[in-house]
Amino acid sequence: MITLKDIENAKTRLTGIVHDTPLTLAPILSKELGANIYLKKENLQITGSFKIRGSFNKLSILSNDEKKQGIVAASAGNHAQGLAYSAKHFNVDATIIMPEATPLIKVSGVKSHGANVILHGSNYDEAYEYAMRYTKEHNKIFIHPFADDEIIAGQGTLALEILENLQEIDMFIIPIGGGGLIAGMATAIKQLRPDIKVIGVVASGANAMKLSFDCKSIQKVESIKTIADGIAVKKVVPVMYDDYISKLVDQIVEVSDNEIANAILSLLEKQKLIVEGAGATSLAAVMHNKVDIKGKNVVLPLSGGNIDVTMLSLIIEKGLIKSNRKMTLIITLYDKPGALKNLTNIFEQTDANIVQIDYDRDSVSLDFGDANIIISIETKGSEHQKLIQDSLDESGYRYKKI
Amino acid sequence: MITLKDIENAKTRLTGIVHDTPLTLAPILSKELGANIYLKKENLQITGSFKIRGSFNKLSILSNDEKKQGIVAASAGNHAQGLAYSAKHFNVDATIIMPEATPLIKVSGVKSHGANVILHGSNYDEAYEYAMRYTKEHNKIFIHPFADDEIIAGQGTLALEILENLQEIDMFIIPIGGGGLIAGMATAIKQLRPDIKVIGVVASGANAMKLSFDCKSIQKVESIKTIADGIAVKKVVPVMYDDYISKLVDQIVEVSDNEIANAILSLLEKQKLIVEGAGATSLAAVMHNKVDIKGKNVVLPLSGGNIDVTMLSLIIEKGLIKSNRKMTLIITLYDKPGALKNLTNIFEQTDANIVQIDYDRDSVSLDFGDANIIISIETKGSEHQKLIQDSLDESGYRYKKI
Repeated sequence: MITLKDIENAKTRLTGIVHDTPLTLAPILSKELGANIYLKKENLQITGSFKIRGSFNKLSILSNDEKKQGIVAASAGNHAQGLAYSAKHFNVDATIIMPEATPLIKVSGVKSHGANVILHGSNYDEAYEYAMRYTKEHNKIFIHPFADDEIIAGQGTLALEILENLQEIDMFIIPIGGGGLIAGMATAIKQLRPDIKVIGVVASGANAMKLSFDCKSIQKVESIKTIADGIAVKKVVPVMYDDYISKLVDQIVEVSDNEIANAILSLLEKQKLIVEGAGATSLAAVMHNKVDIKGKNVVLPLSGGNIDVTMLSLIIEKGLIKSNRKMTLIITLYDKPGALKNLTNIFEQTDANIVQIDYDRDSVSLDFGDANIIISIETKGSEHQKLIQDSLDESGYRYKKI
Repeated sequence: MITLKDIENAKTRLTGIVHDTPLTLAPILSKELGANIYLKKENLQITGSFKIRGSFNKLSILSNDEKKQGIVAASAGNHAQGLAYSAKHFNVDATIIMPEATPLIKVSGVKSHGANVILHGSNYDEAYEYAMRYTKEHNKIFIHPFADDEIIAGQGTLALEILENLQEIDMFIIPIGGGGLIAGMATAIKQLRPDIKVIGVVASGANAMKLSFDCKSIQKVESIKTIADGIAVKKVVPVMYDDYISKLVDQIVEVSDNEIANAILSLLEKQKLIVEGAGATSLAAVMHNKVDIKGKNVVLPLSGGNIDVTMLSLIIEKGLIKSNRKMTLIITLYDKPGALKNLTNIFEQTDANIVQIDYDRDSVSLDFGDANIIISIETKGSEHQKLIQDSLDESGYRYKKI
């Protein structure tokens, strides 16, 4: 179990390497939620997440002989990025085992720091098993993503940085995957400021740590599924629960993928920040009333920003539909010349921008002579959508909003 | 014409109100471009852009009588946001005239600060004309978005903030619309550090200021069209050119919408920041070699982050296709049971995720019995796309990449 001293030592090692990322009061969000919300913008950290803190600290304490041996890790995500960056700094040979389906962009990200990448296995567990075998066969040093004292101490520096810059804090809300971040941060917080509450947040689709916390014993889940890939951890590692989570954390809450997506979109639109699923869970928790924060000073660490743009694009699209800024209609027309033109007139008059059209005359549900048109339009909110629907009604169109 | 003293006074008035936004070296970007690239993250400013600096400074020097009269502005963008926020602070009645087609999200953003919004006119010029008339009829104070000494002095504080925090600077690259930002910044820079080059950047689709600069006399353009709506200004206001741009700016370059979109996507993926078109122009200029920066210390002010998410979604989609992470194919199949299944087998084997399918049996270009399938798939780069195309070739499919 690490102590405050370990974290302070880590902080010294990280000085001049990691950014002291911005910690900012979000005034409008605070007003909306009736609390003072401080965002720690760790998504702006080098390599795009807090993981560099742990991996750099770990590599900096390896002996020269160990450094010559080289390191191995299994990760498709932030651990890989942080470790590859740190390994380059110390001129250590690094081999990262990634699952075969890892997006090219993540592979090339790690390679760009000079690390070797081996694609192996159809999921993380298989990559992990292979990494252990590879480590043994090649006599390397294996670096665990979280169950490692120096990794935990490094992550804890995030809390020190915040506590040095802000006095008035009632509560931290911290994402939990394996538990490395919350273990390190809670160690620092509870030693320096035992009055501050430490709340953990897990993704509903990967909630083994919350189950364990609630049952006061380690629980298993059969499978995991969440958009927060950074905290999609299946098994609770006993040392993380026993030494840290069960002792230092006051409460654990969970958030759904939908709630996480809302938080990602809010950070994007209101804070102008790209935050990945895991990093958005703490905002998701306060946006969806999982924690009682009224009147409190609350720090939310936005732990990382490495989200796949394809996923981001999906989240934006769904967000546009949910917030009534996009609408898709199936409209049944008489299949004759001019039918589409009359319809597009309505969209022009109601100032609705058409973004996609599909046309179908073959559906069995259609009468002969009719056609279905599936049309997606940009709209300006629910009132605007109602105006368009009223215009369609007035003109006698049969349609369905999908 | 303003002086350094005006800007220093503005800075005093803004202290405690505007954020001292992060100024950060971007290490990987710097390496790629062979220069030290510093990003001034003004997109993280209150109201999402630098405009709050000018508007707050302007309102703070109004007399009590003027404050009671109330203010008027024409803007659908950052000027409106900054002014509404500042007006609320000083308890000044604010009326913002916006073009009728303004997205609801921008209208409600301004309303949320307590300003009155009047939708009038089909474009900015019409809204502006109406605002002038409205100001006269209601005996209000009109606040120009840039051609105003106190506005310019406020924007100049951005340069002071940077010069206080960083010594080694060879060059600033600053977006130009009306010219308020570059006028204020260049005034500060050229007085304090005449050795530093000030380079302006305009959008190709709204380049009247560059034309004027190159011809050494004010030029007109017939129409404007750019995704950088924050700098989509049609007319050069003489005082801006005569007193500031022609005197203080060393060079003006221009960037296309495609180049701006690339920069927006790069900021999103690499820097984890949402930056609007105007704010991304300076990065666009260095990414596309418009300025010779080799070995130089270059500051890029990311002036704002208020981009419409619909536009952002489009930029991401196009970016995915350009970077070979999405591919759309038209494939001609024999129209018989199982034809689609054989095809989807290929996509499964090559690990290509299908995101959209359309099916067409009616096209006149098809033989009887054939069908066209239009299929969009997520891919991992150009090699992966080649692998998929090779598999289709081997199986004898006729297809076209679109």
